[in-house]
Amino acid sequence: MSDRSLLILPGDGIGPEVMDEVQRVIAWFGDKRGLGFAVSEDLVGGAAYDAHGTPLTDATMARAQEVDAVLLGAVGGPKYDALDFSVKPERGLLRLRKEMDLFANLRPAQCFDALADFSSLKREVVAGLDIMIVRELTSGVYFGEPRGVFEEGGQRVGLNTQRYTEAEIARVARAAFELARRRGNRVCSMEKANVMESGVLWREVVTEVHAADYADVELSHMYADAGAMQLTRWPKQFDVIVTDNLFGDLLSDLAAMLTGSLGMLPSASLGAPMANGRPKALYEPVHGSAPDIAGQGKANPCACILSFAMALRYSFDAGEEATRLEQAVERVLAKGIRTGDLLNVEGATPATTREMGDAVIAEL
Amino acid sequence: MSDRSLLILPGDGIGPEVMDEVQRVIAWFGDKRGLGFAVSEDLVGGAAYDAHGTPLTDATMARAQEVDAVLLGAVGGPKYDALDFSVKPERGLLRLRKEMDLFANLRPAQCFDALADFSSLKREVVAGLDIMIVRELTSGVYFGEPRGVFEEGGQRVGLNTQRYTEAEIARVARAAFELARRRGNRVCSMEKANVMESGVLWREVVTEVHAADYADVELSHMYADAGAMQLTRWPKQFDVIVTDNLFGDLLSDLAAMLTGSLGMLPSASLGAPMANGRPKALYEPVHGSAPDIAGQGKANPCACILSFAMALRYSFDAGEEATRLEQAVERVLAKGIRTGDLLNVEGATPATTREMGDAVIAEL
Ligand SMILES: CC(C)[C@H](C(=O)O)[C@@H](O)C(=O)O
Ligand SMILES: CC(C)[C@H](C(=O)O)[C@@H](O)C(=O)O
Repeated sequence: MSDRSLLILPGDGIGPEVMDEVQRVIAWFGDKRGLGFAVSEDLVGGAAYDAHGTPLTDATMARAQEVDAVLLGAVGGPKYDALDFSVKPERGLLRLRKEMDLFANLRPAQCFDALADFSSLKREVVAGLDIMIVRELTSGVYFGEPRGVFEEGGQRVGLNTQRYTEAEIARVARAAFELARRRGNRVCSMEKANVMESGVLWREVVTEVHAADYADVELSHMYADAGAMQLTRWPKQFDVIVTDNLFGDLLSDLAAMLTGSLGMLPSASLGAPMANGRPKALYEPVHGSAPDIAGQGKANPCACILSFAMALRYSFDAGEEATRLEQAVERVLAKGIRTGDLLNVEGATPATTREMGDAVIAEL
Repeated sequence: MSDRSLLILPGDGIGPEVMDEVQRVIAWFGDKRGLGFAVSEDLVGGAAYDAHGTPLTDATMARAQEVDAVLLGAVGGPKYDALDFSVKPERGLLRLRKEMDLFANLRPAQCFDALADFSSLKREVVAGLDIMIVRELTSGVYFGEPRGVFEEGGQRVGLNTQRYTEAEIARVARAAFELARRRGNRVCSMEKANVMESGVLWREVVTEVHAADYADVELSHMYADAGAMQLTRWPKQFDVIVTDNLFGDLLSDLAAMLTGSLGMLPSASLGAPMANGRPKALYEPVHGSAPDIAGQGKANPCACILSFAMALRYSFDAGEEATRLEQAVERVLAKGIRTGDLLNVEGATPATTREMGDAVIAEL
């Protein structure tokens, strides 16, 4: 029995089919590299709602708390659009983030050389791009109370609360500074301190943490709207960006789209260390459930495979194995083997989801 | 005495020098087109703080309420960064927006043909781009209460409130639908209804207003993060975008940067009709105060000149004169006359702020 436990939650849409390929990659590491995993599987999102009337059962939640890492495919789809807010597929994912206290969402935006032409941006603007967005994931307006739609003076009022404590800001700032030290040693913090007091506190605390423990890292601050502009204008100016939950949602998606290949981008959501020293962790591709192509073998499994690579690096202290996997994916791309999302290019070889998995395993 | 009154607030940084050129354009319309304006001038932002210890005096506020339109240059600068939140230059602008109840911020993102190569995006992605972002400007997290930085259980907590009433959403939705009818007849509404209840209400009310009075306009909905992605990927898919104050802040700046020429983009902020039928209105360029180049005659006055063109169209019912001015600016660009921000291109003729103003007036 392996001491490395994984809970796989394929979810909705293309989640299950891309996760099938990840399962094969996981098995490969067990067979060939002596890195065995105890893998279990369960439901999340619409799939869980269909089976149990809730997007995440208490039993699944408890299981997620016990394992070393959760691997999630994607949640959501038009089938669930009319559901009440409280049982929407997204609530399953948000509950996992909140109850596992996964406060640091790592969203690399990397432009693969072989794919730079897929970007809507000019090649010179994005080729070689490699930035890391660290998004706070367990607080802010996503979880602040009070919230809801209320009746007030004869009309409806929609309410949400953006709330950050000093401790919440400090811990995600630390995560960003730590990452920066292992990269380009620069952090840019983004908020709207010119308009929001939560942003004023954000800037203050990031500055304090920096002065106290990370003065060796270069720190700058930018308003989030200017950040959106600068990401669009010249993204290579950034190394690590740290920002709150809502700004992080928009800015990390924007950064992802700069690379032109959403089907390639993984993410990690990390919390505090558990008793065994491993952090609470959930890994998931940046792309969504893509219901329009689900079940047709067209989905690109690379983002989900690369999410497993992040798990190797951040949960299982197997950075070299992670790099091995990442390089295998890069070699497959360089050979022109492509799923439909990356296909409209000369000399490319079309591949199904399964064939893409085959190619990665062959490269390994 | 003209019955068209304008209050000019040059503000900080490059505000005064670009506004000088606008003043000359305004005078030209009086002299040559019989469109006289009663122009007064006053302080806002850091300039007002320096003179009066507040970024907007009550007297200036009262004056702004009386005139037909306010023209604002820009506010802010590093000199004022350390000021308390309550007297920062931005508060002057925010007070104008709030007390004049300028709920509809019109932010066109247009790519001038002569400038398409300045974009970081590929020419084919942005050439001919013409979208209109309608941002709610007087509510949401910018103004919601409670707000502040508090001490709680021995640590600081930063708090802001996102709050929208049905009426606030409905009126900006109407503004967007009305504009769409005079353009491509399509509106895309953006929020985070999958995460925020204020977004749930936003989507509901926009849908209701559409069904009741604008069923002839094509309406779609998008989550704001997906919106940021789609704006980056293929912005020409949009005609009018309507969104809240904070999402609008980021998304309109992102859209502006797609065009590659921030120095060209105007904006209008409109409120309810006054007794004379004209809407409360404030016009300002999208660019900021650019303190690094202030006072050097390098600033591009076009965005501010085009803001006056929007005033002609939306405040003074002079759409043809607005078009005349817009076309004059386009012809100047086509001739290659450029301020420094748009200069690194072969065959361009460098121009100072003043020379750019001269060129526009000559073209008129
Ligand atoms: C699915 C949704 C709830 C989620 C979010 O808003 O956080 C997604 O957009 C993301 O970025 O992971
Ligand atoms: C200057 C600032 C307060 C303002 C805002 O956040 O609204 C600006 O970014 C804008 O978009 O007009």
